[in-house]
Amino acid sequence: MSVTDASPVEIATAASISARKIAILPVDARNHALTVIHQALSDAKQEILLANARDLDLATISAEEGTLSQSVLKRLDLGRKGKWEDMLKGILDVRGLDDPVGQITLKTKLDDGLELERVTAPIGVLLIIFEARPEVIANIASLAIKSGNAAILKGGKESTESFVAISNVISEALKQTEVPNASIQLVKTRDVIPQLLALDKYVDLVIPRGSNELVLYVKNNTKIPVLGHADGLCSIYIHEDADKDLAVKVLMDAKVEYPAACNAVETLLVHESVLTTILPSVAQALLEKGVSLRCDTESKAALSFCLDKTSATILQDATESDYDTEFLDLILAIKTIPGSTSSDAAVDFAAAHINAHSSKHTDAILTSNKDLARRFQNAVDSACVFWNTSTRMADGMRFGFGTEVGISTNKIHSRGPVGLEGLMIYKYYINGSGQTADDYHGGPGGKQWKHEKMALR
Amino acid sequence: MSVTDASPVEIATAASISARKIAILPVDARNHALTVIHQALSDAKQEILLANARDLDLATISAEEGTLSQSVLKRLDLGRKGKWEDMLKGILDVRGLDDPVGQITLKTKLDDGLELERVTAPIGVLLIIFEARPEVIANIASLAIKSGNAAILKGGKESTESFVAISNVISEALKQTEVPNASIQLVKTRDVIPQLLALDKYVDLVIPRGSNELVLYVKNNTKIPVLGHADGLCSIYIHEDADKDLAVKVLMDAKVEYPAACNAVETLLVHESVLTTILPSVAQALLEKGVSLRCDTESKAALSFCLDKTSATILQDATESDYDTEFLDLILAIKTIPGSTSSDAAVDFAAAHINAHSSKHTDAILTSNKDLARRFQNAVDSACVFWNTSTRMADGMRFGFGTEVGISTNKIHSRGPVGLEGLMIYKYYINGSGQTADDYHGGPGGKQWKHEKMALR
Repeated sequence: MSVTDASPVEIATAASISARKIAILPVDARNHALTVIHQALSDAKQEILLANARDLDLATISAEEGTLSQSVLKRLDLGRKGKWEDMLKGILDVRGLDDPVGQITLKTKLDDGLELERVTAPIGVLLIIFEARPEVIANIASLAIKSGNAAILKGGKESTESFVAISNVISEALKQTEVPNASIQLVKTRDVIPQLLALDKYVDLVIPRGSNELVLYVKNNTKIPVLGHADGLCSIYIHEDADKDLAVKVLMDAKVEYPAACNAVETLLVHESVLTTILPSVAQALLEKGVSLRCDTESKAALSFCLDKTSATILQDATESDYDTEFLDLILAIKTIPGSTSSDAAVDFAAAHINAHSSKHTDAILTSNKDLARRFQNAVDSACVFWNTSTRMADGMRFGFGTEVGISTNKIHSRGPVGLEGLMIYKYYINGSGQTADDYHGGPGGKQWKHEKMALR
Repeated sequence: MSVTDASPVEIATAASISARKIAILPVDARNHALTVIHQALSDAKQEILLANARDLDLATISAEEGTLSQSVLKRLDLGRKGKWEDMLKGILDVRGLDDPVGQITLKTKLDDGLELERVTAPIGVLLIIFEARPEVIANIASLAIKSGNAAILKGGKESTESFVAISNVISEALKQTEVPNASIQLVKTRDVIPQLLALDKYVDLVIPRGSNELVLYVKNNTKIPVLGHADGLCSIYIHEDADKDLAVKVLMDAKVEYPAACNAVETLLVHESVLTTILPSVAQALLEKGVSLRCDTESKAALSFCLDKTSATILQDATESDYDTEFLDLILAIKTIPGSTSSDAAVDFAAAHINAHSSKHTDAILTSNKDLARRFQNAVDSACVFWNTSTRMADGMRFGFGTEVGISTNKIHSRGPVGLEGLMIYKYYINGSGQTADDYHGGPGGKQWKHEKMALR
């Protein structure tokens, strides 16, 4: 790992060359590097926390001047309870994962002495742009090393001192290992990013982690594939047969616990018959937590009728644009789904609304009917489609992926919470004994393809 | 299927809506549509061949005027022996493939009554731009229907009459099925392509099939992911222990059989000791077929010395740019790999040359040593890396994929020959019973994740 002031082309070239070296290191060598990094960071705790304190001092001034939010200030602090330990544990967690490199995922006997294999391989060079959380650099370096990829990192400027301190420790540690130093490079200044985004010859994948603005900027300024998501406009549909207590519990979790999260709910769809059965309880619970409800005509009428006057004051009229808005706040848009025809039709109506308005991140249905749930899950074109649980379940840790590279709303490669396998691609190997394509020309005397599926080891 | 003159936005919107409908059709309904299309095309053979004859008449004039190549003229002719039958058989072959939709590829018990599933799903809307081979439209329509995707098609203008005739037959046939007509749309004029390439909100994947210029144009003019490859700069490395006869046979296949193919070899790397053992036989065989050899100093000296004077006249000096050139012709660049150190070092040298110059399509090593072969396969960063066989093996049919969507030099999603699974992505389903993320808050009294891997059906 190196903190670099080199030119973008030099950085990308060095990454590209290192990528080929780290790609062929055995898993023991990659795991050993993680052990060494873990030990070196443990030993350097004091100097890193001192560097972090310098970041915090500057950030505190900015926060007092109002140019930095309190939440960024909070995320900066490596000394907060459990944060340092979590960072170190994360490195060992990644070390403990199965080796993602060199897995054979397809094996076909094309003919006698002619075997096709599909083998997992690292993607190559990753450009990862991330927020100001200092511990992330250690986690991302671990993921890159484990997966055999080279990485160019750019972290939020508020954490510069912490990043440089951590990078220097990792850099020294890597000298005791076979991992090439330039396989992880930290760039300090934002001005090289546009140039790196233009180097699609060397950089294989960009992973922006952070604000919607950052992701949109990256998507609009590169031909390199981008793994990330700019929006999280999630919906929950309450069908007529949903359980009332379950609905209240799920909505409170999805809207109130952490409204700024990308997997928080923004739109509530309610079956017409739910207006008088379940919606009042859900609305009452949300209103008590200060959630503003932006209602269509039907739901507003239903709620005005049954709620007391105080809570009714934060009942608002929804506009069409509310159904396209990621509020990231204590605001929920409500829309009524016509219930005059069949249950299937109501589910299809809800799914069509979601497909037209959601960001294809995470959506959920609450219903007692398994078949209707599956109908909804198949019909909604989102990365995550849940039944009787909160949209906030969309998370790599909760999915059991151990660690999360990010959440993707892409529709190719990887989708939803992305674990280590989102950093992998594959190669085809053929092991032959001198056969040529022309041997199988299809005419008289030509060889025949066997195309037999073989067992994987 | 419809031949459309609608605006690009109307086309893309209709495709997007149809995509959601075809995505949830059961496999029987999708297969039935293929049966019906097959029958309808069989019945309409005469009218389609008449339309094809009109294309051929126009094309023949253009060929005589010199504005169209003979090879395009040849590809246009649907009446050529076996072509019509192959087109019809292709539809039934696709029908016979396993259903790619709804396969469960991961199942995890997150907790009691809380199960995570990863389920394969169609990507959505494909924009496929292809060459003037009239039969391709039937094959692509079959692939799209089988995989549950909607497709917008634009074929080469020389086949317009044939395309329209085939489309009209398919369109009529689809009326007897559940497949929405707008799930396959044919656009006739090239001028809508730039506008369609801008509609990344609706179009999920672009597949350009055809010339390098077309693929480059598409890549440079869209934010939509592109499945395709612009170059096929393939290399073969002959190690010192390679079998001479095998080397001659493989090189003849890879260079002479079909030099215009993307998987033909363009650069030959030879171990130093091969200069006097194997290279003369390989060179003699190639020269007899009219292949020009562009040699570095060492290989030219070796060949000048051992070849007769006549053949030596098409020995040329290689320039650096020859190693970066896809000749697509009877020309081969030759470079010598230093043999002074170990075999490992020579293989690494060859791999490094390939990684710096190849288009990451297909490369091969000829050697008797299995370990060296695997070293080369791991080190070379190309979609296909072969041992003791021809680069021309890189092909979906030869790989046993049945049908090929295209060959991809991408490094995410799909790589090398791409079968039906290149048109698929996945969704995550959670089936819960009212659990919320906050139930697993990690503090006292919180629930614990089980994260148990479950057997797939």
